[in-house]
Amino acid sequence: MIIDNLIEQIRKKNNPSVIGLDTHLDYLPVEMRAGIARELPMRTIPPFGGWQVVIDKDRLKNAIWTYNKQIIDAIYDIVPAIKVQLAYYEMYGVEGIQALSQTIQYAKEKDLIVIVDGKRNDIGATATCYANAYLGKTNINELEYKVFDGDFLTVNAYLGSDGIRPFLKCMEEEKKGIFVLVKTSNLSSGELQDLRLENQLTVYEYMGQMVKKWGENFIGQYGYSSVGAVVGATYPKQAATLRQQMQHTFFLIPGYGAQGGKATDIQTCFDKNGLGGVVNSSRGILCAYQQEEYIGKSFDIAAREACIAMQKDLTSVIKIK
Amino acid sequence: MIIDNLIEQIRKKNNPSVIGLDTHLDYLPVEMRAGIARELPMRTIPPFGGWQVVIDKDRLKNAIWTYNKQIIDAIYDIVPAIKVQLAYYEMYGVEGIQALSQTIQYAKEKDLIVIVDGKRNDIGATATCYANAYLGKTNINELEYKVFDGDFLTVNAYLGSDGIRPFLKCMEEEKKGIFVLVKTSNLSSGELQDLRLENQLTVYEYMGQMVKKWGENFIGQYGYSSVGAVVGATYPKQAATLRQQMQHTFFLIPGYGAQGGKATDIQTCFDKNGLGGVVNSSRGILCAYQQEEYIGKSFDIAAREACIAMQKDLTSVIKIK
Repeated sequence: MIIDNLIEQIRKKNNPSVIGLDTHLDYLPVEMRAGIARELPMRTIPPFGGWQVVIDKDRLKNAIWTYNKQIIDAIYDIVPAIKVQLAYYEMYGVEGIQALSQTIQYAKEKDLIVIVDGKRNDIGATATCYANAYLGKTNINELEYKVFDGDFLTVNAYLGSDGIRPFLKCMEEEKKGIFVLVKTSNLSSGELQDLRLENQLTVYEYMGQMVKKWGENFIGQYGYSSVGAVVGATYPKQAATLRQQMQHTFFLIPGYGAQGGKATDIQTCFDKNGLGGVVNSSRGILCAYQQEEYIGKSFDIAAREACIAMQKDLTSVIKIK
Repeated sequence: MIIDNLIEQIRKKNNPSVIGLDTHLDYLPVEMRAGIARELPMRTIPPFGGWQVVIDKDRLKNAIWTYNKQIIDAIYDIVPAIKVQLAYYEMYGVEGIQALSQTIQYAKEKDLIVIVDGKRNDIGATATCYANAYLGKTNINELEYKVFDGDFLTVNAYLGSDGIRPFLKCMEEEKKGIFVLVKTSNLSSGELQDLRLENQLTVYEYMGQMVKKWGENFIGQYGYSSVGAVVGATYPKQAATLRQQMQHTFFLIPGYGAQGGKATDIQTCFDKNGLGGVVNSSRGILCAYQQEEYIGKSFDIAAREACIAMQKDLTSVIKIK
């Protein structure tokens, strides 16, 4: 079970955190992103017809990849997992996806668990494509090859079981996992998720019940399932309810740091052995070098120190046994 | 308003359909996909260490792109729009995304409206990345460039307004649109969507109300908003309810053909002028050449004839004025 591998990494490193590589080019030191985009005249001979933005594709890809590699090199020995947010790579088109692919591969070489954050969802046949892309294998003329090969994928279950089953099938075959959105960290998450159903459950509690059911056949040796749930750090009360209702469900917990969630808010997500969740921080780590306390330090050194600070903060309240 | 452009294309071509380019390599004629994947020995000198699958990346990209181009060439004068399902391109990794990018660009050159089907969803900062990627512009060092440049993107609103607002902002700036998942076409869509809330609305009706609100400032000259809704052809009763409750919301209607939805099922989605929705077919068109009735015809000719058959079927019950 992949969830056991994640938990073992967390125990070994005494660190229940995952670092989000949501690599926005604006986060990079200026010198790393110089010259990627240039404005050139539309025509070089008269009549001139305005200007166009030309992208140096190799520089674009290399900037994102180099930044990620240096971050990974700086932190791989102290954190159990990274999370790649697909939106940030898709935003840079084909070159972003190339950098993503290299990043996932490199993180796995460094024995990091890779959570692909895509919040994917679709009908069965299409969900199968997503499962193949991010967790399993794509079939071409009867031959199978791995495409992105992440360990976990985040998914959205608005479409119900049909859209989840292809991931479960892929999990069985490939020893992978998913995290299903249950209670998200954003301000408006309650607009739909907190509504109460006729059966007295809220939408997020109902979603939690479905997640529990989907995860039943994937419970590993620590009592947690490879079908996990996304539960925001910004809603400690709801998280506590869910922890009680879903004792075998591991939580991916966004919202710590930049979004406002504190270690004490998160405590209720964990069991008496200090297990039960992994806490994400993205900007707080990637952009640490821009913070006053790390001034003068390179981005990778600052990221490492911020990871250590986060580990200390979390383990001051979460005692991992 | 982009919705007006879509409606004008529908009226001009007297065709309320959108063709889904969900290009699975298995759909291609054997000769177009030959030689893309090969099995080679891991080592060429002894001791031999098993086999590995090697992908000819240029052939992979070109096969998908060539197929799509030939389909577009065969149908662009008779259909108003195409829909690209991202999962199918992501499944082929970087090369899939390259083919996607070429396909979108080519379809736009042919004056087709391009609906990007990604069902994307995330918190605000991340939703902004998705909006930039598929509808707007990505900023690099203060310079902006278009990445995929679709006309519409499908989105999932489980996260509430925060996750939608970045798309609305992008729509204002770029004259683009979205379709929000309301009632999906799959068998299990009711597991969550049909549940009744304390306020007596079902989840899908409540979602419909949110979509209506988000769309208020984007209503075009035909009375429809550029914030549309995904409403499955497979649930005619629910679709009829939604049409009544959302008179300014245009529907993207999947589920026709391969999924079982019939023209008569879809009728209730349309207003007295034959407007109000666009009906998707993917496999039914792409794989028409494998059907008995088109035997001996090339895939593109068969696709064109299947589009004409679909147009006739739809317009037999939907009279566009």
